[in-house]
Amino acid sequence: MLFEKLKNKKVLLASKSPRRKEILENLGITFEIIVKDGIDETIPDGINNETAAVYLSEKKAKSYTEHICENTILITADTIVCLDDEILTKPKNYDDAFRILSILSGRKHKVITGVCIRLLNKQISFADTTYVYFKKLTNEEIDYYIKNYKPYDKAGAYGIQEWIGYIGIEKIEGSYFNVVGLPINKIYKTLNKLL
Amino acid sequence: MLFEKLKNKKVLLASKSPRRKEILENLGITFEIIVKDGIDETIPDGINNETAAVYLSEKKAKSYTEHICENTILITADTIVCLDDEILTKPKNYDDAFRILSILSGRKHKVITGVCIRLLNKQISFADTTYVYFKKLTNEEIDYYIKNYKPYDKAGAYGIQEWIGYIGIEKIEGSYFNVVGLPINKIYKTLNKLL
Repeated sequence: MLFEKLKNKKVLLASKSPRRKEILENLGITFEIIVKDGIDETIPDGINNETAAVYLSEKKAKSYTEHICENTILITADTIVCLDDEILTKPKNYDDAFRILSILSGRKHKVITGVCIRLLNKQISFADTTYVYFKKLTNEEIDYYIKNYKPYDKAGAYGIQEWIGYIGIEKIEGSYFNVVGLPINKIYKTLNKLL
Repeated sequence: MLFEKLKNKKVLLASKSPRRKEILENLGITFEIIVKDGIDETIPDGINNETAAVYLSEKKAKSYTEHICENTILITADTIVCLDDEILTKPKNYDDAFRILSILSGRKHKVITGVCIRLLNKQISFADTTYVYFKKLTNEEIDYYIKNYKPYDKAGAYGIQEWIGYIGIEKIEGSYFNVVGLPINKIYKTLNKLL
Protein backbone atom coordinates (compact mmCIF):
# COMPACT_ATOMS: atom_id res chain seq x y z
CA MET A 1 0.00 0.00 0.00
CA LEU A 2 1.11 3.55 -0.72
CA PHE A 3 1.02 4.52 2.97
CA GLU A 4 3.82 2.07 3.79
CA LYS A 5 5.88 3.13 0.78
CA LEU A 6 5.68 6.73 1.94
CA LYS A 7 7.10 6.06 5.41
CA ASN A 8 10.32 8.09 5.79
CA LYS A 9 9.41 10.13 2.71
CA LYS A 10 8.52 13.80 2.77
CA VAL A 11 5.78 14.75 0.32
CA LEU A 12 5.64 18.40 -0.74
CA LEU A 13 2.68 19.83 -2.62
CA ALA A 14 3.77 23.04 -4.32
CA SER A 15 0.44 24.78 -4.79
CA LYS A 16 -1.53 27.68 -3.37
CA SER A 17 -4.82 26.03 -4.25
CA PRO A 18 -6.95 25.01 -1.24
CA ARG A 19 -8.77 22.61 -3.59
CA ARG A 20 -5.56 20.73 -4.47
CA LYS A 21 -4.70 20.52 -0.77
CA GLU A 22 -8.15 19.06 -0.02
CA ILE A 23 -7.86 16.46 -2.78
CA LEU A 24 -4.43 15.29 -1.63
CA GLU A 25 -5.67 15.14 1.98
CA ASN A 26 -8.35 12.69 0.88
CA LEU A 27 -5.63 10.30 -0.22
CA GLY A 28 -4.89 9.96 3.49
CA ILE A 29 -1.19 10.75 3.19
CA THR A 30 0.89 13.27 5.14
CA PHE A 31 2.33 16.20 3.19
CA GLU A 32 3.43 19.80 3.45
CA ILE A 33 2.48 22.78 1.31
CA ILE A 34 5.19 24.98 -0.18
CA VAL A 35 4.53 28.08 -2.22
CA LYS A 36 6.65 30.31 -4.37
CA ASP A 37 5.45 33.36 -6.28
CA GLY A 38 6.59 34.86 -9.51
CA ILE A 39 7.00 31.76 -11.68
CA ASP A 40 6.72 32.86 -15.31
CA GLU A 41 3.76 31.00 -16.84
CA THR A 42 4.36 31.97 -20.47
CA ILE A 43 3.75 29.03 -22.79
CA PRO A 44 6.13 28.55 -25.75
CA ASP A 45 4.52 28.90 -29.17
CA GLY A 46 3.60 25.87 -31.22
CA ILE A 47 3.00 23.28 -28.50
CA ASN A 48 -0.35 21.62 -27.93
CA ASN A 49 -2.36 22.19 -24.76
CA GLU A 50 -1.55 18.86 -23.09
CA THR A 51 2.16 19.54 -23.63
CA ALA A 52 1.67 23.09 -22.33
CA ALA A 53 0.10 21.86 -19.06
CA VAL A 54 2.97 19.39 -18.54
CA TYR A 55 5.52 22.08 -19.49
CA LEU A 56 4.16 24.42 -16.82
CA SER A 57 4.08 21.71 -14.13
CA GLU A 58 7.72 20.86 -14.96
CA LYS A 59 8.71 24.50 -14.91
CA LYS A 60 7.18 24.84 -11.45
CA ALA A 61 9.02 21.67 -10.31
CA LYS A 62 12.31 23.09 -11.54
CA SER A 63 11.83 26.26 -9.53
CA TYR A 64 11.68 24.26 -6.27
CA THR A 65 15.07 22.54 -6.78
CA GLU A 66 16.44 23.73 -3.43
CA HIS A 67 13.66 21.80 -1.63
CA ILE A 68 14.57 18.40 -3.10
CA CYS A 69 16.51 16.18 -0.70
CA GLU A 70 17.01 12.44 -0.69
CA ASN A 71 13.59 11.50 0.64
CA THR A 72 11.55 14.30 -0.87
CA ILE A 73 8.67 13.82 -3.28
CA LEU A 74 7.65 17.10 -4.88
CA ILE A 75 4.26 17.38 -6.61
CA THR A 76 3.49 20.34 -8.87
CA ALA A 77 0.47 20.84 -11.11
CA ASP A 78 -1.00 23.25 -13.60
CA THR A 79 -4.61 23.29 -14.80
CA ILE A 80 -5.54 24.65 -18.21
CA VAL A 81 -9.07 25.21 -19.51
CA CYS A 82 -9.49 25.32 -23.26
CA LEU A 83 -12.22 25.67 -25.82
CA ASP A 84 -11.49 24.72 -29.42
CA ASP A 85 -7.78 24.70 -28.54
CA GLU A 86 -7.86 28.29 -27.26
CA ILE A 87 -6.64 28.51 -23.67
CA LEU A 88 -9.02 30.38 -21.38
CA THR A 89 -6.99 32.11 -18.70
CA LYS A 90 -7.96 33.37 -15.26
CA PRO A 91 -10.40 36.28 -15.70
CA LYS A 92 -8.98 39.75 -15.24
CA ASN A 93 -12.21 41.30 -13.95
CA TYR A 94 -16.02 40.95 -13.90
CA ASP A 95 -16.42 41.63 -17.63
CA ASP A 96 -13.72 39.12 -18.54
CA ALA A 97 -15.30 36.43 -16.31
CA PHE A 98 -18.68 37.18 -17.93
CA ARG A 99 -17.15 36.85 -21.40
CA ILE A 100 -15.45 33.52 -20.57
CA LEU A 101 -18.57 31.96 -19.00
CA SER A 102 -20.67 33.17 -21.94
CA ILE A 103 -18.46 31.31 -24.41
CA LEU A 104 -18.45 28.14 -22.26
CA SER A 105 -22.27 28.27 -22.04
CA GLY A 106 -24.06 25.49 -23.95
CA ARG A 107 -20.80 23.91 -25.08
CA LYS A 108 -18.21 21.24 -24.37
CA HIS A 109 -14.70 22.24 -23.30
CA LYS A 110 -11.53 20.57 -22.08
CA VAL A 111 -9.83 20.77 -18.70
CA ILE A 112 -6.21 19.56 -18.69
CA THR A 113 -4.11 19.21 -15.59
CA GLY A 114 -0.39 18.70 -16.03
CA VAL A 115 1.38 17.06 -13.08
CA CYS A 116 5.08 16.70 -12.33
CA ILE A 117 6.29 14.34 -9.60
CA ARG A 118 9.93 15.02 -8.84
CA LEU A 119 12.35 12.98 -6.73
CA LEU A 120 16.07 13.56 -6.28
CA ASN A 121 17.07 11.31 -9.17
CA LYS A 122 13.97 10.93 -11.25
CA GLN A 123 10.94 12.80 -12.44
CA ILE A 124 7.67 11.73 -14.04
CA SER A 125 5.19 14.09 -15.60
CA PHE A 126 1.88 13.54 -17.34
CA ALA A 127 -1.37 15.26 -18.28
CA ASP A 128 -4.97 14.21 -17.67
CA THR A 129 -7.90 15.53 -19.70
CA THR A 130 -11.56 15.79 -18.76
CA TYR A 131 -14.34 17.01 -21.06
CA VAL A 132 -16.93 19.26 -19.40
CA TYR A 133 -20.39 20.03 -20.84
CA PHE A 134 -22.11 23.22 -19.72
CA LYS A 135 -25.84 23.77 -20.20
CA LYS A 136 -26.93 27.05 -21.77
CA LEU A 137 -26.40 29.51 -18.91
CA THR A 138 -28.62 32.58 -18.57
CA ASN A 139 -27.08 36.02 -18.12
CA GLU A 140 -28.70 36.14 -14.67
CA GLU A 141 -27.01 32.89 -13.67
CA ILE A 142 -23.60 34.07 -14.89
CA ASP A 143 -24.02 37.42 -13.12
CA TYR A 144 -25.16 35.75 -9.88
CA TYR A 145 -22.23 33.33 -9.93
CA ILE A 146 -19.52 35.93 -10.59
CA LYS A 147 -20.88 38.38 -8.00
CA ASN A 148 -21.21 35.74 -5.28
CA TYR A 149 -18.24 33.45 -5.98
CA LYS A 150 -15.68 35.86 -7.50
CA PRO A 151 -13.94 33.22 -9.65
CA TYR A 152 -10.94 35.46 -10.43
CA ASP A 153 -8.37 32.88 -9.28
CA LYS A 154 -9.83 30.17 -11.50
CA ALA A 155 -8.81 29.16 -15.03
CA GLY A 156 -11.97 29.24 -17.15
CA ALA A 157 -13.68 31.48 -14.55
CA TYR A 158 -15.47 28.66 -12.73
CA GLY A 159 -15.09 26.00 -10.05
CA ILE A 160 -16.91 22.74 -10.73
CA GLN A 161 -17.35 22.32 -6.97
CA GLU A 162 -19.17 25.67 -6.65
CA TRP A 163 -22.78 26.71 -7.39
CA ILE A 164 -22.21 27.01 -11.14
CA GLY A 165 -20.90 23.43 -11.24
CA TYR A 166 -24.04 22.20 -9.49
CA ILE A 167 -26.56 24.01 -11.67
CA GLY A 168 -24.65 24.39 -14.92
CA ILE A 169 -22.67 21.25 -15.69
CA GLU A 170 -24.70 18.56 -17.42
CA LYS A 171 -22.01 15.94 -17.68
CA ILE A 172 -18.30 15.28 -17.71
CA GLU A 173 -16.17 12.64 -19.40
CA GLY A 174 -13.04 11.85 -17.43
CA SER A 175 -11.92 12.42 -13.85
CA TYR A 176 -13.97 14.83 -11.71
CA PHE A 177 -11.03 15.59 -9.41
CA ASN A 178 -8.93 16.49 -12.44
CA VAL A 179 -11.36 19.36 -13.07
CA VAL A 180 -11.16 20.40 -9.42
CA GLY A 181 -7.37 20.57 -9.86
CA LEU A 182 -5.58 17.23 -9.41
CA PRO A 183 -5.93 13.93 -11.33
CA ILE A 184 -5.63 12.10 -8.04
CA ASN A 185 -6.10 8.55 -9.35
CA LYS A 186 -3.18 9.01 -11.75
CA ILE A 187 -1.02 10.56 -9.01
CA TYR A 188 -1.76 7.58 -6.73
CA LYS A 189 -0.95 5.14 -9.54
CA THR A 190 2.27 6.97 -10.44
CA LEU A 191 3.49 7.17 -6.83
CA ASN A 192 2.82 3.45 -6.41
CA LYS A 193 4.91 2.71 -9.49
CA LEU A 194 7.73 5.13 -8.62
CA LEU A 195 8.31 3.98 -5.04
CA MET B 1 -33.84 32.93 -10.81
CA LEU B 2 -34.86 29.90 -8.78
CA PHE B 3 -34.31 31.70 -5.46
CA GLU B 4 -37.10 34.17 -6.23
CA LYS B 5 -39.44 31.45 -7.45
CA LEU B 6 -38.93 29.59 -4.16
CA LYS B 7 -39.98 32.51 -1.96
CA ASN B 8 -43.04 31.43 0.07
CA LYS B 9 -42.39 27.80 -0.87
CA LYS B 10 -41.34 25.12 1.57
CA VAL B 11 -38.86 22.64 0.14
CA LEU B 12 -38.68 19.25 1.84
CA LEU B 13 -35.89 16.78 1.11
CA ALA B 14 -37.01 13.33 2.20
CA SER B 15 -33.69 11.60 2.67
CA LYS B 16 -31.44 10.37 5.45
CA SER B 17 -28.35 10.83 3.29
CA PRO B 18 -25.94 13.52 4.54
CA ARG B 19 -24.51 13.59 0.99
CA ARG B 20 -27.87 14.51 -0.55
CA LYS B 21 -28.31 17.22 2.09
CA GLU B 22 -24.89 18.65 1.24
CA ILE B 23 -25.60 18.68 -2.49
CA LEU B 24 -28.91 20.48 -2.07
CA GLU B 25 -27.29 22.98 0.31
CA ASN B 26 -24.86 23.91 -2.47
CA LEU B 27 -27.80 25.02 -4.58
CA GLY B 28 -28.14 27.83 -2.06
CA ILE B 29 -31.81 27.21 -1.31
CA THR B 30 -33.53 26.79 2.05
CA PHE B 31 -35.05 23.39 2.81
CA GLU B 32 -35.96 20.98 5.57
CA ILE B 33 -35.12 17.31 5.95
CA ILE B 34 -37.87 14.81 6.68
CA VAL B 35 -37.31 11.12 7.23
CA LYS B 36 -39.56 8.11 7.43
CA ASP B 37 -38.43 4.54 7.99
CA GLY B 38 -39.85 1.28 6.81
CA ILE B 39 -40.65 2.10 3.17
CA ASP B 40 -40.73 -1.18 1.26
CA GLU B 41 -38.06 -1.00 -1.44
CA THR B 42 -39.02 -4.14 -3.34
CA ILE B 43 -38.82 -3.61 -7.09
CA PRO B 44 -41.52 -5.17 -9.30
CA ASP B 45 -40.31 -7.83 -11.72
CA GLY B 46 -39.77 -7.05 -15.35
CA ILE B 47 -38.98 -3.33 -15.22
CA ASN B 48 -35.65 -1.89 -16.31
CA ASN B 49 -33.27 -0.24 -13.86
CA GLU B 50 -34.05 3.37 -14.84
CA THR B 51 -37.76 2.67 -14.34
CA ALA B 52 -36.97 0.95 -11.03
CA ALA B 53 -35.09 4.00 -9.69
CA VAL B 54 -37.99 6.28 -10.67
CA TYR B 55 -40.51 3.79 -9.23
CA LEU B 56 -38.75 3.83 -5.86
CA SER B 57 -38.49 7.64 -5.78
CA GLU B 58 -42.23 7.87 -6.55
CA LYS B 59 -43.06 5.28 -3.91
CA LYS B 60 -41.13 7.32 -1.35
CA ALA B 61 -42.95 10.50 -2.48
CA LYS B 62 -46.31 8.76 -2.03
CA SER B 63 -45.46 7.79 1.55
CA TYR B 64 -45.03 11.48 2.52
CA THR B 65 -48.54 12.53 1.36
CA GLU B 66 -49.45 14.02 4.76
CA HIS B 67 -46.57 16.52 4.43
CA ILE B 68 -47.80 18.03 1.15
CA CYS B 69 -49.54 21.38 1.60
CA GLU B 70 -50.21 24.15 -0.90
CA ASN B 71 -46.72 25.58 -0.97
CA THR B 72 -44.73 22.42 -0.38
CA ILE B 73 -42.17 21.00 -2.77
CA LEU B 74 -41.19 17.47 -1.81
CA ILE B 75 -38.01 15.94 -3.26
CA THR B 76 -37.37 12.20 -2.96
CA ALA B 77 -34.61 10.16 -4.59
CA ASP B 78 -33.31 6.65 -4.90
CA THR B 79 -29.88 5.66 -6.16
CA ILE B 80 -29.27 2.29 -7.79
CA VAL B 81 -25.89 0.83 -8.76
CA CYS B 82 -25.89 -1.82 -11.45
CA LEU B 83 -23.45 -3.94 -13.37
CA ASP B 84 -24.63 -5.67 -16.53
CA ASP B 85 -28.22 -4.88 -15.49
CA GLU B 86 -27.83 -6.65 -12.14
CA ILE B 87 -28.63 -4.30 -9.25
CA LEU B 88 -25.92 -4.21 -6.59
CA THR B 89 -27.57 -3.56 -3.25
CA LYS B 90 -26.15 -2.18 -0.02
CA PRO B 91 -23.66 -4.70 1.39
CA LYS B 92 -24.86 -6.84 4.26
CA ASN B 93 -21.43 -7.25 5.87
CA TYR B 94 -17.67 -7.14 5.22
CA ASP B 95 -17.66 -10.19 2.95
CA ASP B 96 -20.54 -8.87 0.90
CA ALA B 97 -18.85 -5.46 0.49
CA PHE B 98 -15.65 -7.25 -0.56
CA ARG B 99 -17.58 -9.31 -3.11
CA ILE B 100 -19.31 -6.25 -4.58
CA LEU B 101 -16.10 -4.17 -4.88
CA SER B 102 -14.30 -7.15 -6.42
CA ILE B 103 -16.86 -7.38 -9.21
CA LEU B 104 -16.78 -3.61 -9.81
CA SER B 105 -12.95 -3.71 -10.00
CA GLY B 106 -11.52 -3.07 -13.48
CA ARG B 107 -14.95 -2.54 -15.00
CA LYS B 108 -17.56 0.01 -16.02
CA HIS B 109 -20.87 0.16 -14.16
CA LYS B 110 -23.95 2.36 -14.07
CA VAL B 111 -25.26 4.59 -11.29
CA ILE B 112 -28.88 5.64 -11.70
CA THR B 113 -30.64 8.12 -9.46
CA GLY B 114 -34.41 8.35 -9.71
CA VAL B 115 -35.90 11.63 -8.49
CA CYS B 116 -39.50 12.58 -7.78
CA ILE B 117 -40.51 16.21 -7.27
CA ARG B 118 -44.00 16.41 -5.84
CA LEU B 119 -46.24 19.45 -5.42
CA LEU B 120 -49.86 19.49 -4.28
CA ASN B 121 -51.29 19.19 -7.78
CA LYS B 122 -48.46 17.90 -9.90
CA GLN B 123 -45.52 15.61 -9.84
CA ILE B 124 -42.50 15.15 -12.10
CA SER B 125 -40.09 12.25 -11.90
CA PHE B 126 -37.03 11.33 -13.91
CA ALA B 127 -33.84 9.29 -13.80
CA ASP B 128 -30.25 10.29 -14.47
CA THR B 129 -27.51 7.83 -15.37
CA THR B 130 -23.75 8.10 -14.93
CA TYR B 131 -21.20 5.53 -16.06
CA VAL B 132 -18.35 4.91 -13.62
CA TYR B 133 -15.05 3.21 -14.54
CA PHE B 134 -13.07 1.56 -11.75
CA LYS B 135 -9.40 0.65 -12.15
CA LYS B 136 -8.34 -2.86 -11.17
CA LEU B 137 -8.45 -2.68 -7.37
CA THR B 138 -6.06 -4.79 -5.28
CA ASN B 139 -7.38 -6.93 -2.43
CA GLU B 140 -5.38 -4.74 -0.04
CA GLU B 141 -7.10 -1.59 -1.35
CA ILE B 142 -10.56 -3.14 -1.03
CA ASP B 143 -9.80 -4.39 2.48
CA TYR B 144 -8.37 -1.02 3.56
CA TYR B 145 -11.40 0.84 2.21
CA ILE B 146 -14.03 -1.39 3.80
CA LYS B 147 -12.28 -1.46 7.20
CA ASN B 148 -11.77 2.30 7.31
CA TYR B 149 -14.90 3.62 5.60
CA LYS B 150 -17.50 0.94 6.41
CA PRO B 151 -19.60 1.48 3.27
CA TYR B 152 -22.55 -0.55 4.56
CA ASP B 153 -25.08 2.23 3.94
CA LYS B 154 -24.04 2.64 0.31
CA ALA B 155 -25.48 1.01 -2.80
CA GLY B 156 -22.58 -0.63 -4.65
CA ALA B 157 -20.48 -0.58 -1.43
CA TYR B 158 -18.64 2.65 -2.23
CA GLY B 159 -18.82 6.43 -2.06
CA ILE B 160 -17.24 8.27 -4.99
CA GLN B 161 -16.38 11.12 -2.61
CA GLU B 162 -14.40 8.80 -0.31
CA TRP B 163 -10.85 7.39 -0.54
CA ILE B 164 -11.84 4.64 -2.97
CA GLY B 165 -13.30 7.23 -5.33
CA TYR B 166 -10.05 9.19 -5.28
CA ILE B 167 -7.71 6.26 -5.90
CA GLY B 168 -9.95 3.87 -7.77
CA ILE B 169 -12.15 5.72 -10.24
CA GLU B 170 -10.45 6.42 -13.55
CA LYS B 171 -13.26 8.27 -15.23
CA ILE B 172 -16.97 8.90 -15.27
CA GLU B 173 -19.40 9.77 -18.06
CA GLY B 174 -22.31 11.82 -16.81
CA SER B 175 -23.00 13.90 -13.72
CA TYR B 176 -20.62 13.50 -10.75
CA PHE B 177 -23.23 14.65 -8.24
CA ASN B 178 -25.62 12.02 -9.59
CA VAL B 179 -23.16 9.38 -8.36
CA VAL B 180 -22.89 11.13 -4.97
CA GLY B 181 -26.69 10.88 -4.74
CA LEU B 182 -28.57 13.70 -6.50
CA PRO B 183 -28.58 14.78 -10.17
CA ILE B 184 -28.61 18.37 -9.01
CA ASN B 185 -28.44 20.05 -12.43
CA LYS B 186 -31.60 18.22 -13.52
CA ILE B 187 -33.34 19.05 -10.24
CA TYR B 188 -32.49 22.74 -10.72
CA LYS B 189 -33.74 22.63 -14.31
CA THR B 190 -36.96 20.84 -13.34
CA LEU B 191 -37.74 23.20 -10.45
CA ASN B 192 -37.20 26.17 -12.77
CA LYS B 193 -39.67 24.71 -15.26
CA LEU B 194 -42.24 23.65 -12.67
CA LEU B 195 -42.49 26.95 -10.79
